[in-house]
Amino acid sequence: MRKLYVIGIGAGDPDQVTVQAVKAMRRAEVFYVIGKGEAKRELVEVRTAILAEHMDREYRVVEIADPPRERTVADGQYREVVRDWHERRAALLGEAFAEHDGVGAILVWGDPSLYDSTLRMIERVDARTPLDYEVIPGVTSAQALAARHRIVLHEIGEPVHITTGRRLREEGLRPGVPTVVMLDGETSFTGVPGDDVHIWWGAYLGMPDEELIEGPLRAVESRILQRRNELREAKGWIMDIYLLRRGVG
Amino acid sequence: MRKLYVIGIGAGDPDQVTVQAVKAMRRAEVFYVIGKGEAKRELVEVRTAILAEHMDREYRVVEIADPPRERTVADGQYREVVRDWHERRAALLGEAFAEHDGVGAILVWGDPSLYDSTLRMIERVDARTPLDYEVIPGVTSAQALAARHRIVLHEIGEPVHITTGRRLREEGLRPGVPTVVMLDGETSFTGVPGDDVHIWWGAYLGMPDEELIEGPLRAVESRILQRRNELREAKGWIMDIYLLRRGVG
Repeated sequence: MRKLYVIGIGAGDPDQVTVQAVKAMRRAEVFYVIGKGEAKRELVEVRTAILAEHMDREYRVVEIADPPRERTVADGQYREVVRDWHERRAALLGEAFAEHDGVGAILVWGDPSLYDSTLRMIERVDARTPLDYEVIPGVTSAQALAARHRIVLHEIGEPVHITTGRRLREEGLRPGVPTVVMLDGETSFTGVPGDDVHIWWGAYLGMPDEELIEGPLRAVESRILQRRNELREAKGWIMDIYLLRRGVG
Repeated sequence: MRKLYVIGIGAGDPDQVTVQAVKAMRRAEVFYVIGKGEAKRELVEVRTAILAEHMDREYRVVEIADPPRERTVADGQYREVVRDWHERRAALLGEAFAEHDGVGAILVWGDPSLYDSTLRMIERVDARTPLDYEVIPGVTSAQALAARHRIVLHEIGEPVHITTGRRLREEGLRPGVPTVVMLDGETSFTGVPGDDVHIWWGAYLGMPDEELIEGPLRAVESRILQRRNELREAKGWIMDIYLLRRGVG
């Protein structure tokens, strides 16, 4: 059975890779790279730097083009559209596995268990042609955000909620439930009402252009919006994440 | 100003340490170890193994005894009791810093941002005697749990809730909100009602005695309880974590 490693490589700093991840990479002969387009060229370069630094022998890189995805979707159809897109990506991945021999690896930003579709694709491929696959966990961008702000994500005994911009808009922010928001292209924090909310924001975490802003949401939100626009224009893309906390009582 | 690193070292597998963590350890001359008592001797050994493997020169280890903590507390007083305990731990840590020279480091299981009090203590010490401290993120046990079960923590577009056994008992499990439960010495999953709940459980993740059980909660809960008791009796301590998910509608 074909051996495959799905490896979390951390949030953007090449040194955030674990020793376990490096060992798994060194067992691999073929790296499957699922394209993300020009916008994230810099991320591809970090990945290339990680391989260049840690690999001690020859390896092949197989690029898999991303199938097009419908971006403007009615809320009710979101899951179906994503599932269909995963199905098409899984088919391309299955073809690539069939064409190449040897132990394989897929490098995943952050951790494969959080807002990443690699494992869903692997499951689909595995259902048709059984694979012997193993997952190596990585540092998530939520952990990287907290580390750079030097904070614990929650007050004593509180839970931590991790969600998307879409869900934050639908569900709001509950008091005493610190909420990490990922995948938010629409700066949904501006729609969170109230004067009792604090924000810890970070962009390009662990990369040379890292930016951090923290403060009461109403006091810093316009500064975040402005920096976010400037950075996105200057670099052509942005990757950011934030923690919100509404005070209790 | 005294330099101090607070370093996440992963969930139990010595190889889960990051390259960034290794580099920070190598800059340190004194490691402050906050005692956890005999019960977790094995965890101390993993930490010792990590240092032995990665340190390339002499270093000192300073052990700090944990002040006693009231374990049976009325729910309303929980935070106060914990805060008082943090205050006493911070005082001991401050004394240790004052007694020893050189770049310091504290190794934290998992990640310092999640259910760990090290940063709260450092903040207190820093308020009295300013420190130049830096946080190195680590792989959390939630990531390790997902990796060993080879799952994404959530279905497409869902949030992820991370909470304690105490909070799970108070708040229950909402449909479509996958919930990772940490710090649950009281097997609170048995109190979650319904036949539509799935559990992914793991103990001693990344360690030689790792155990995993997964399935519909009602079908596997007694098996988890039994294994958990056996393991705890055999080893004298247990460290476990689980993910619960209630099906949507």
